[in-house]
Amino acid sequence: MNQIRKIAVVVTARPSYSRVKTVLEAVNKHPDLELQLVVAASALLDRYGSAVNYIEKDGFNIAAKVFNVLEGENLAAAAKTTGIGILELSSVFDNLKPDIVVTIADRFETMATAIAASYMNIPLAHIQGGEVTGNIDEKVRHAITKLADYHFVASENAKERVIKLGEDPSMVFNTGCPSIDLATTINETEKLLFDPYEKYGGVGAKPDLSKGYLVVMQHPVTTEYKDSRKHIEVTLEAIYKLDIPTLWFWPNVDAGADGTSTGIRAFREKHQLPNVHFFKNMEGIDFLHLLNHSLCLIGNSSVGIRECAFLGVPVVNIGSRQNKRDRGGNSIDVDYCQEKIESAILNSINNGKFASSSIYGNGSAGNEIADLLQELPLQFHKTITY
Amino acid sequence: MNQIRKIAVVVTARPSYSRVKTVLEAVNKHPDLELQLVVAASALLDRYGSAVNYIEKDGFNIAAKVFNVLEGENLAAAAKTTGIGILELSSVFDNLKPDIVVTIADRFETMATAIAASYMNIPLAHIQGGEVTGNIDEKVRHAITKLADYHFVASENAKERVIKLGEDPSMVFNTGCPSIDLATTINETEKLLFDPYEKYGGVGAKPDLSKGYLVVMQHPVTTEYKDSRKHIEVTLEAIYKLDIPTLWFWPNVDAGADGTSTGIRAFREKHQLPNVHFFKNMEGIDFLHLLNHSLCLIGNSSVGIRECAFLGVPVVNIGSRQNKRDRGGNSIDVDYCQEKIESAILNSINNGKFASSSIYGNGSAGNEIADLLQELPLQFHKTITY
Amino acid sequence: MNQIRKIAVVVTARPSYSRVKTVLEAVNKHPDLELQLVVAASALLDRYGSAVNYIEKDGFNIAAKVFNVLEGENLAAAAKTTGIGILELSSVFDNLKPDIVVTIADRFETMATAIAASYMNIPLAHIQGGEVTGNIDEKVRHAITKLADYHFVASENAKERVIKLGEDPSMVFNTGCPSIDLATTINETEKLLFDPYEKYGGVGAKPDLSKGYLVVMQHPVTTEYKDSRKHIEVTLEAIYKLDIPTLWFWPNVDAGADGTSTGIRAFREKHQLPNVHFFKNMEGIDFLHLLNHSLCLIGNSSVGIRECAFLGVPVVNIGSRQNKRDRGGNSIDVDYCQEKIESAILNSINNGKFASSSIYGNGSAGNEIADLLQELPLQFHKTITY
Amino acid sequence: MNQIRKIAVVVTARPSYSRVKTVLEAVNKHPDLELQLVVAASALLDRYGSAVNYIEKDGFNIAAKVFNVLEGENLAAAAKTTGIGILELSSVFDNLKPDIVVTIADRFETMATAIAASYMNIPLAHIQGGEVTGNIDEKVRHAITKLADYHFVASENAKERVIKLGEDPSMVFNTGCPSIDLATTINETEKLLFDPYEKYGGVGAKPDLSKGYLVVMQHPVTTEYKDSRKHIEVTLEAIYKLDIPTLWFWPNVDAGADGTSTGIRAFREKHQLPNVHFFKNMEGIDFLHLLNHSLCLIGNSSVGIRECAFLGVPVVNIGSRQNKRDRGGNSIDVDYCQEKIESAILNSINNGKFASSSIYGNGSAGNEIADLLQELPLQFHKTITY
Repeated sequence: MNQIRKIAVVVTARPSYSRVKTVLEAVNKHPDLELQLVVAASALLDRYGSAVNYIEKDGFNIAAKVFNVLEGENLAAAAKTTGIGILELSSVFDNLKPDIVVTIADRFETMATAIAASYMNIPLAHIQGGEVTGNIDEKVRHAITKLADYHFVASENAKERVIKLGEDPSMVFNTGCPSIDLATTINETEKLLFDPYEKYGGVGAKPDLSKGYLVVMQHPVTTEYKDSRKHIEVTLEAIYKLDIPTLWFWPNVDAGADGTSTGIRAFREKHQLPNVHFFKNMEGIDFLHLLNHSLCLIGNSSVGIRECAFLGVPVVNIGSRQNKRDRGGNSIDVDYCQEKIESAILNSINNGKFASSSIYGNGSAGNEIADLLQELPLQFHKTITY
Repeated sequence: MNQIRKIAVVVTARPSYSRVKTVLEAVNKHPDLELQLVVAASALLDRYGSAVNYIEKDGFNIAAKVFNVLEGENLAAAAKTTGIGILELSSVFDNLKPDIVVTIADRFETMATAIAASYMNIPLAHIQGGEVTGNIDEKVRHAITKLADYHFVASENAKERVIKLGEDPSMVFNTGCPSIDLATTINETEKLLFDPYEKYGGVGAKPDLSKGYLVVMQHPVTTEYKDSRKHIEVTLEAIYKLDIPTLWFWPNVDAGADGTSTGIRAFREKHQLPNVHFFKNMEGIDFLHLLNHSLCLIGNSSVGIRECAFLGVPVVNIGSRQNKRDRGGNSIDVDYCQEKIESAILNSINNGKFASSSIYGNGSAGNEIADLLQELPLQFHKTITY
Repeated sequence: MNQIRKIAVVVTARPSYSRVKTVLEAVNKHPDLELQLVVAASALLDRYGSAVNYIEKDGFNIAAKVFNVLEGENLAAAAKTTGIGILELSSVFDNLKPDIVVTIADRFETMATAIAASYMNIPLAHIQGGEVTGNIDEKVRHAITKLADYHFVASENAKERVIKLGEDPSMVFNTGCPSIDLATTINETEKLLFDPYEKYGGVGAKPDLSKGYLVVMQHPVTTEYKDSRKHIEVTLEAIYKLDIPTLWFWPNVDAGADGTSTGIRAFREKHQLPNVHFFKNMEGIDFLHLLNHSLCLIGNSSVGIRECAFLGVPVVNIGSRQNKRDRGGNSIDVDYCQEKIESAILNSINNGKFASSSIYGNGSAGNEIADLLQELPLQFHKTITY
Repeated sequence: MNQIRKIAVVVTARPSYSRVKTVLEAVNKHPDLELQLVVAASALLDRYGSAVNYIEKDGFNIAAKVFNVLEGENLAAAAKTTGIGILELSSVFDNLKPDIVVTIADRFETMATAIAASYMNIPLAHIQGGEVTGNIDEKVRHAITKLADYHFVASENAKERVIKLGEDPSMVFNTGCPSIDLATTINETEKLLFDPYEKYGGVGAKPDLSKGYLVVMQHPVTTEYKDSRKHIEVTLEAIYKLDIPTLWFWPNVDAGADGTSTGIRAFREKHQLPNVHFFKNMEGIDFLHLLNHSLCLIGNSSVGIRECAFLGVPVVNIGSRQNKRDRGGNSIDVDYCQEKIESAILNSINNGKFASSSIYGNGSAGNEIADLLQELPLQFHKTITY
């Protein structure tokens, strides 16, 4: 008979929740696992879409909430947010006494999860190590790999990279990306079955979506945070010029998010944007349906690289944020340049949908990860392999 | 004409100061560098030998003091100490505006330095990455490598390892260990020129040192912290049994230090130790002289692996703390076993001094590092090499 | 010859800066005082009007900036913001080594200033103790009185109250409120000499101000924070109904500010407000000119009780926030009730301007406080007088 | 039928636990109350006597442990310890959701309890307000009174003082000091029924206690912390000179405790103290028995003012720490002067026991407080009475 293992998963942001939702479900359903869901940082905040509301609506019990976002449009605030996160999460882990802690991807504040767990000798699992991007996330991701005991990666390239980093190959698993699990449930031919304006509110114009529409999701890049307003303005100008129905999603909390937000607000005050509607948040499955029926995704979200690769949706990927992440063939990379963004969008619309790519998995990541969390030996002691 | 670069070095513990003292001197003397010395954590505390007093006596100006040690004999306290360190150091860096931050080795709290600097887009130099040991330091060291922009390592093996970790080879430099710089100034034949009892006080018996003596320095191992009292008692029993004149140095602050300290205090209350004297701290150069004239160093300090290899002093290295660190041929590794410790000490005494090994450098590390800090391009953006 | 005294003043919010600006000027000009201005909390944040920008524009040097606002629409965030403030301010005071620390009024986060200073044995001066209001500020204000060594109060009633609290009468000074210093420079007949829309931007309609206008400034009340959205909606409905040109100022950061902000944003999305313009911030002197030419101030700001009493501007004071503060005869108190607010506004407009009241001073507070800071004996030791 | 009320009591130090033990027992036994015991700060630390071990041994369940002592022999550390306490306790209260929080007396770190509770709108009860002493505790105590909603004071003078501080008289209750509850169970004629050396260990000589003995308990005074070593040395010299059997209790954690500790350690290294035994801690009831049979208590502990007044034990009270606290007639106040201390001790011994004084209560405080916690209206809103 198995002992029930307590699995603490720390979700710190809206997109992280979307990414691991199927893992949370699989852990919750597993007879030998107990989910201890910790919701922290921007996932709790209204300004960033209150992921916590969706989490509760989806029926998950929340074991602890951790408010650790220190306000301030500067880089010290990111460091301090991480410091406060460590103070709070070490208390949380002391209370919950999890058998394994799970941390997701590479946002700066996830370092707090990794440090609290590893310093407290709790085995640490990392989802989505081994990828390559172009800013502070790059440093954070690989540093967390070196603190983690188990690695659940999303592609073969990622697996190879984690092993090259000196990790024991028997602790590195290519489970695919759990965000693909959800995408595999999308029926290609299905119509958009909900009215996004009605269901999600938001602000701005309500363009007619029946003849096709664009989706925009552009986050600030932390190493370029002083430029975040300039960057978002380039995209705003391009969308304004093209004048195609557009659904725009608000950015993550990050050093620079205020520049991005301020840029959007100022642009809206100055220009009418008769074809653009703004959303703060959307349930993952609805967002995937929306993407699936869109003409093109514009911005720098990893959704373009992953889910859209599986769905075959064209993507115009702007700037350095997804640099070196594996591509499924559905995306065009462009610089912060209005003309290039416009022509890439028009080309993408002309091209239409691509074939589905399974480079980031085939839909079983959630279950595979849950099974591994139950089976793997509990250990927090490791040495580099070379 | 060169611009003066501001170099912030964060020293968090007594042994770290000893290790980088020649780097601090070389930066201080360099015409194009300005030293911003930050003293933090246990380096400020009386219980751990007040390294700060030696630093001031050595004539260094201290730019900021950071008290961040949270008391508590548990692992959460180590995590929280690191969290508080991030809060404090990000303010310090915001005030000092260094061009480069330097962090030393792999103590758990040095992660605070690495995170504050890298999250604030300040180029980060790491001294003594690429080594291999057997506890939380192992995770910390390699994680810091992944956050750092420049790597000043102490041996060829370490250099290879850092490059394998995906770092740009042109940013990895085998400068040797700066602690060896000091050891190269020791004149082999020179007599012990000071009376340690008189100069450093301490407590306990005052055995006659003229016929030879042992030195003990044993730290708790963080992954085994519940056993720290048991471990120290084994060594105490061995030393008590051998009854050879012994100079014993107090341990570092670490989860488990209280177990070690309590073990020593309890043993002293119970037994007379007519041949053992206890010290809290000693200036680096005096400590090296003391080692150089000793019969043998016992414990798990890295001094045994590095400086003693250069000096040829025999070492009985106990337990897992220095696991896999490169050895210079002067040491015997033993488990926590009284009999084995005793016979290893006796064998070491019989064997006498070894030939000098330069595996950890030849005495120019301080100057080499200072020159590199002046010449290297300022950068905080990197991607893994594979 | 006098020794220069270092006076650290900690400003944590936009209205606090307006209130003590003449103190800062007087300290700055005083030959025997050195101003160490610390800007903290919401005074640094864009969302709350970036008081820091005005401070810098006014020519003050900032000795330290302290980011300590923890995001989160809940009361724990107010406590944690205070805790972080203590951590940060104690480092700041350790660096600046002030002879006296000055804290202003009664915002929750000012407790951090009071604790850091008093625990570090730095004499603490408190501006504006002894008043009475109706929420957490009430507890904070009197608690700070008990931590402070010098009391610079704004009215005779306040002076009596502080003395009744057991403070040494020789350390309690009725200097008047420094915010009145600025109001005494307003020339009654002077026209409004600037265009607020042009000079301060803001959002919304741009109603014609030439025939008279209302000013609204309503903050959330911390003990009623769950109701903050409902409270602001009542005022919004009243203003919407009256349809008189209105200039509306954004609220302070406080538990509940998000409810207030969200309420305003949602109302604006739903209704056209063709007669309302929204501002985030305004220089103190311009704000006073604006008030001086307004028909009426509506809300719960202390400006209505103080500066408007001096200027004779009618005030409709809503809810409990200014409860029991001394009134100069220019204000009507109403509950959160749309009809009552509307009729009070109409009555105020009919009534027109009142005679000037000097209940909160006559314009010399800044200089008096600076002189006292230079002359008072330095002491941090006191005992209750009964 | 009554609703069960959840009562969170935060114990931060060994003497605070002794003081409120009967309150904890009464709350635990009360059918309509649920005790949520939070153990924090020095109460958790080995160096300060691990009160937590006694708490657990006494059978109390601990709802949360809060490690918040920041190491550092300086005043900033006291401030930061309080700041960390606020961060941690606000999370604890958020988890426990108590109906009332109880804070004890006036140690600096209890301010964290008061701020976390009052800022989170949790009714706050304060035990032992209204007293008068001579250092930072004086500021802390009265500031907490101004944050608290209910006041359980220990004497009539204290009650009057709290009411003069502007508190609603119907919320101020002279329950007596709960520490007296325990003292009333001491049988005057009973022999000392345990061997303190055997039961509590400790270090030093083991003088024969059968012909009478002294008890010493001297804490550092926070406003004089740089002198703590000097102060303790005066007492040490006096005790050394008198050479009467003496039981010495280790001091509290406070800025300055390290000076006191270091002073004691250094004195012990230098002198033989053949008549002195040192203890770290003792169960309250055993300590009272020990006092009851002692010749005299020496130092500055409030036990001398309270419990010893009830027991009639002579007290030599040194320095300013108990200044202005009500006296029961059993104590002599002396300055830090070896000769005066010696002669006061000799006079006390000559005088012998005093009559019992009930100035601090008659033994029912615990039950009275529990009943009040059950009956009082839940409220966190107050205004000053004048």
